[in-house]
Amino acid sequence: MTPQALNEILAAEHPAAAALLSPVGRRAAMPLGIPQQAAQAAGCALKATIGEITDGDGVPLALPSVARHFPDLDPKQAFRYAPQAGLTPLREAWARHLDAEAAAPRSLPVVTGGITHGLSLCAELFTSPTVPLLLPEPYWDNYETIFTMRLGTPIRGFPFYAGGGFNVKGLAAALAQVQGPQAVLLNFPANPTGYAPTAAEAQAITEVIAAAPGPLLVICDDAYHGLVFEDGVYAGSLFALLANAVDPARTLVCRVDGATKELVFFGGRVGFLTFSASGRAGEALAEKAAAVIRATVSSCSAPAQAAVLAALASPTLAAEQHQVRERLATRYRALRDALLANSLEPYPFNGGCFALVPVMGMDAEEARHRLIRDHGVGTITVPGANALRLAFCGIEAEDIPELVARVARVIG
Amino acid sequence: MTPQALNEILAAEHPAAAALLSPVGRRAAMPLGIPQQAAQAAGCALKATIGEITDGDGVPLALPSVARHFPDLDPKQAFRYAPQAGLTPLREAWARHLDAEAAAPRSLPVVTGGITHGLSLCAELFTSPTVPLLLPEPYWDNYETIFTMRLGTPIRGFPFYAGGGFNVKGLAAALAQVQGPQAVLLNFPANPTGYAPTAAEAQAITEVIAAAPGPLLVICDDAYHGLVFEDGVYAGSLFALLANAVDPARTLVCRVDGATKELVFFGGRVGFLTFSASGRAGEALAEKAAAVIRATVSSCSAPAQAAVLAALASPTLAAEQHQVRERLATRYRALRDALLANSLEPYPFNGGCFALVPVMGMDAEEARHRLIRDHGVGTITVPGANALRLAFCGIEAEDIPELVARVARVIG
Repeated sequence: MTPQALNEILAAEHPAAAALLSPVGRRAAMPLGIPQQAAQAAGCALKATIGEITDGDGVPLALPSVARHFPDLDPKQAFRYAPQAGLTPLREAWARHLDAEAAAPRSLPVVTGGITHGLSLCAELFTSPTVPLLLPEPYWDNYETIFTMRLGTPIRGFPFYAGGGFNVKGLAAALAQVQGPQAVLLNFPANPTGYAPTAAEAQAITEVIAAAPGPLLVICDDAYHGLVFEDGVYAGSLFALLANAVDPARTLVCRVDGATKELVFFGGRVGFLTFSASGRAGEALAEKAAAVIRATVSSCSAPAQAAVLAALASPTLAAEQHQVRERLATRYRALRDALLANSLEPYPFNGGCFALVPVMGMDAEEARHRLIRDHGVGTITVPGANALRLAFCGIEAEDIPELVARVARVIG
Repeated sequence: MTPQALNEILAAEHPAAAALLSPVGRRAAMPLGIPQQAAQAAGCALKATIGEITDGDGVPLALPSVARHFPDLDPKQAFRYAPQAGLTPLREAWARHLDAEAAAPRSLPVVTGGITHGLSLCAELFTSPTVPLLLPEPYWDNYETIFTMRLGTPIRGFPFYAGGGFNVKGLAAALAQVQGPQAVLLNFPANPTGYAPTAAEAQAITEVIAAAPGPLLVICDDAYHGLVFEDGVYAGSLFALLANAVDPARTLVCRVDGATKELVFFGGRVGFLTFSASGRAGEALAEKAAAVIRATVSSCSAPAQAAVLAALASPTLAAEQHQVRERLATRYRALRDALLANSLEPYPFNGGCFALVPVMGMDAEEARHRLIRDHGVGTITVPGANALRLAFCGIEAEDIPELVARVARVIG
């Protein structure tokens, strides 16, 4: 479609999305280019369309030196270009995965090259130097790269915590301070804090967002979805709560998630971007996302998509995921207990892959370097927070007491 | 490094690159974020750095349902995050592949998610609404998406052909019309024309570019590198010719190439971006590219990188590539002969995957639709050129006479 046609659909059927589009977002549309023309000729006996090297029946002439590394993936899926929005059966499989958790108005998920790619698509379609991004602080440092370095989108922070929980009032106050279009990003369980809201907080966040006058873009960064290790914590995604609660005249919600952590496939770079818009509005937004994909990476890596598609159909997948989550839960408890035993008080945490420990009386960067130099311990400092992030996802539970003891020697 | 430090290195050691940087390009730098801090802790016994789920020794806890699809790839390469600039041994292997063809001042190649990604990195680092892109016309339609839709970079076309060959004078005239920074993109063998310059034209192009006052960015889109099927055609990349000829005070050359066509791995999305800058300037440019990768896709898909790395070490790779090229050469000759036999005169072509046939006396879009509807033939029309692009890479040689006969029935 033309950009104008897509924009008209959105104006009619999802006014918030239409109002939120950035200049790039307004221009974005799949031209009647080679992929579309090739699709129109799909039924032809003689195809001289797309520039792929095949045998004449669409079977890729993959080189054995490459192909032997993917022995059981469908060659048409793994070696040919994936569609810009991703392998269709993979999009449908992920949609079923979302719906199985909670029904909500949604588009078909668009396949992205990992979570960051989903976030950068949101950033590019909807934010700009005049549309600020609200973020609970401290936040993952790459948000600055994605939103500000590339696009000039200003970040407005508000304190993540109020007392022992999420700062719902701070979110409401931050939203109230902006006139006109704005975006807010909620990452639960959070990096770097390892915090996910309680069920009551999730409900309160939903009410605050639903009441915002808009135009408001809400980005749910669900990278660590499912990694929740305490009772009473809301284990689902905020996306379904929000998508069911918001008014499409005022608010658009985007869910960004993927195989990276959920399927423990970090190198694969398979993510998904789903909009809180069904029908033609959802299709229009997916087409805009596909157009930006076409303009940045053309399409996402196909072998990884094919592997995720196959894994989603595997009868043992759920048990495998459960096993990894149990192993992480054991590490989580080991870290929680070791911090307590060493009188180190982290920010409240209950999930994800991290705990964030404030550093008192010294510079966290100095503490980090001293831990590397003198104690053989690697940690992360988060810009803006004088604190050390301890990742428990890459260290076995039995080593965690020693890790924390060494950290305590420097910052205790 | 900080953006300032990188910009100072470029100002001192590659003034053209410094002068060409877009606002995003000037801001681009890898912050002291999680990947860098994790690298600093590489030698630590206890690592609580990066948010990857591993066994404590860096071995990824890949799920069997995913991992079984990559049975012989190194799990650390395939399942963990690749570095932002790509797997280091893959970058080094591609550098050897470039040097084996022709020595030239160059950076270490940066791994990209395919050719389009390499182009979009060039676009983002160096072009903007005030830095036009010169393109021989007709050109691949996706350049408009990459450069103009996303970034507002204006495209200034000039006629691809003069007589039976490349329009070197037109290139010189187009370059002379722009004051200040500009970019030019040269795609040989070309999509959609299937033309690569003769050796004499390659030399003349090099002289024109080397004489340009700059600041000038030259992007060599080498997607179809190596697919040359006539004698007397320059079979190498212009990159080495140009990189050896230009003055770094005035001109920066970027080579964008990859495994997509060269290793017939369309779905893999493994490309490379190489700058005509060695030493610290090359490292600074590679870091800026890596920063934009971090901000858009975080890192490129690792299983495909690992497979390309393994393939580049395969003793049978060259023979496999030769076999595919011979098969394409047979199709090329079949197409050339069939066009002649049917009195269809294409634009001059000698390589790549395409021939472009002008349509006289009717609209090419109408011809394309009639071919689909009435003749079961899929072709591509190129916006701006009233012509049909015939791809010979996806159709067997024995079917090509029938294909061309049907095309001739509509446009002959």
